[in-house]
Amino acid sequence: MSADLDRPYRGGFVGPEHHFALTIYFEDTDTAGIVYYANYLKFMERARSDMIRAAGVDQVAAHHEGKGAYAVAEVQIRYLRPARLGDDLVVVSKVEEVRGVSVLIQQRVMRGEEMLTDGKVTAAFLDPSGRPQRQPKQWVEKFRGIGQQA
Amino acid sequence: MSADLDRPYRGGFVGPEHHFALTIYFEDTDTAGIVYYANYLKFMERARSDMIRAAGVDQVAAHHEGKGAYAVAEVQIRYLRPARLGDDLVVVSKVEEVRGVSVLIQQRVMRGEEMLTDGKVTAAFLDPSGRPQRQPKQWVEKFRGIGQQA
Amino acid sequence: MSADLDRPYRGGFVGPEHHFALTIYFEDTDTAGIVYYANYLKFMERARSDMIRAAGVDQVAAHHEGKGAYAVAEVQIRYLRPARLGDDLVVVSKVEEVRGVSVLIQQRVMRGEEMLTDGKVTAAFLDPSGRPQRQPKQWVEKFRGIGQQA
Amino acid sequence: MSADLDRPYRGGFVGPEHHFALTIYFEDTDTAGIVYYANYLKFMERARSDMIRAAGVDQVAAHHEGKGAYAVAEVQIRYLRPARLGDDLVVVSKVEEVRGVSVLIQQRVMRGEEMLTDGKVTAAFLDPSGRPQRQPKQWVEKFRGIGQQA
Repeated sequence: MSADLDRPYRGGFVGPEHHFALTIYFEDTDTAGIVYYANYLKFMERARSDMIRAAGVDQVAAHHEGKGAYAVAEVQIRYLRPARLGDDLVVVSKVEEVRGVSVLIQQRVMRGEEMLTDGKVTAAFLDPSGRPQRQPKQWVEKFRGIGQQA
Repeated sequence: MSADLDRPYRGGFVGPEHHFALTIYFEDTDTAGIVYYANYLKFMERARSDMIRAAGVDQVAAHHEGKGAYAVAEVQIRYLRPARLGDDLVVVSKVEEVRGVSVLIQQRVMRGEEMLTDGKVTAAFLDPSGRPQRQPKQWVEKFRGIGQQA
Repeated sequence: MSADLDRPYRGGFVGPEHHFALTIYFEDTDTAGIVYYANYLKFMERARSDMIRAAGVDQVAAHHEGKGAYAVAEVQIRYLRPARLGDDLVVVSKVEEVRGVSVLIQQRVMRGEEMLTDGKVTAAFLDPSGRPQRQPKQWVEKFRGIGQQA
Repeated sequence: MSADLDRPYRGGFVGPEHHFALTIYFEDTDTAGIVYYANYLKFMERARSDMIRAAGVDQVAAHHEGKGAYAVAEVQIRYLRPARLGDDLVVVSKVEEVRGVSVLIQQRVMRGEEMLTDGKVTAAFLDPSGRPQRQPKQWVEKFRGIGQQA
């Protein structure tokens, strides 16, 4: 049982959609009593990192080996309903399109059946000097294969 | 001189555009050596809060008196170049449109002549229960008057 | 299975010690390639909130009902080894002493067998106006009972 | 005038004490209506970075040249009064002791005459692999010279 408690949460795929659950802590909220708007981008990044890992791509190793990392090139997000302290949320992410140097991901933050935010994120693969570079072929195949094994 | 050091930075208007300068600290960066993407939304919110104050609207008092606060309804942002530790940046903000319950603001983050991010933010005025409400008439007039007194 | 993915992580007690596991994401790191020092306090707060919940105390409801909330009165923390992107950590927390208006909690952040940080936190129970108030009797009993039911 | 607005705030020394002023924004607060406890450590780090720069030490260049960076080894902090949205604060920092590989700094956060937090921070100079190393001799002299030129 201790072994279980010591294992951090991991999300995973439900068909082509990746689910990532989290709880709202004090750090996420602001004095208006709701989650601060920039923090949804943190939740979305945690979900994307987890999705990339779940797809079989080791982004952290690539970063540590100096091969580059994903950086966000564009975000569009609508805030529909606010989250509050103690809420349990799920970030649902879906790879919409895999291009040469970037990936377009749709991400919505849900509280049960309610959609709190709805967004699109373009992530570009950059070399360590910050220039866009082609994503490794194997990664592209892994992203394209999501949801097809299920 | 101590008096000056003890006075926090305030931005201000240059014609119709509001300028807000800041420096990048360790807290703003991530292990990729650049500013973490969500943190630009923090910079933009500091700039908007300062702009609203500079326009003569006391949002903080309204919040403390339980009259409501602005909440972000939509963000579109493109990340063009990354900022790094120690960079001096300027957030340039411009009220594009004042509607009944919301304001559309264009915000770009500059490093000298280079544009690092380019965004549009829709901020809606919410009552304490989170419902959109009409902005106070005086506030609307103040937003509409920006850049016209100069 | 989707049901499991949609359930956020919860920590729990291993005897008198509470375990809370987490993974390091980009947001937690800084340009020095390590976790930014203030962010350990976020991890510790998540762990304390989870511990309080696991002990049977509904702090979130108390906050929403305007009965007050815990606020940190004192922190002592030593940083022994840095955490990095992708690390899996466990915050181990132990209630050391329950006083009238405050609780003294020992918290260490572990990466496997390595201790990364070692700290003590005093949390005081404040009323909504910010004044220390006695903790509800039932809560005190719950904190005192930790580890004794096991 | 635009030139002034585009220049970010810099703190400076008042005798042996360094002053660094800042304003509380939404991002700094939490749902309890006060500044989240970990965020004071961000303010303190901004102040230390500014103090180091004001003392004539170019920590950012050293970091970019791969010569190392300061990392916090220990923090002790007491939280006496909370800060709220819109507050103007000053972080007052004083180098208490300069040792071979570390510096002991006293830092308090003030709101006018009120002390909000009172802390001590030990910062160690680490090489890029994270091992403590002796601070450059010139830096030590600069830290020791603070307040003596005034």
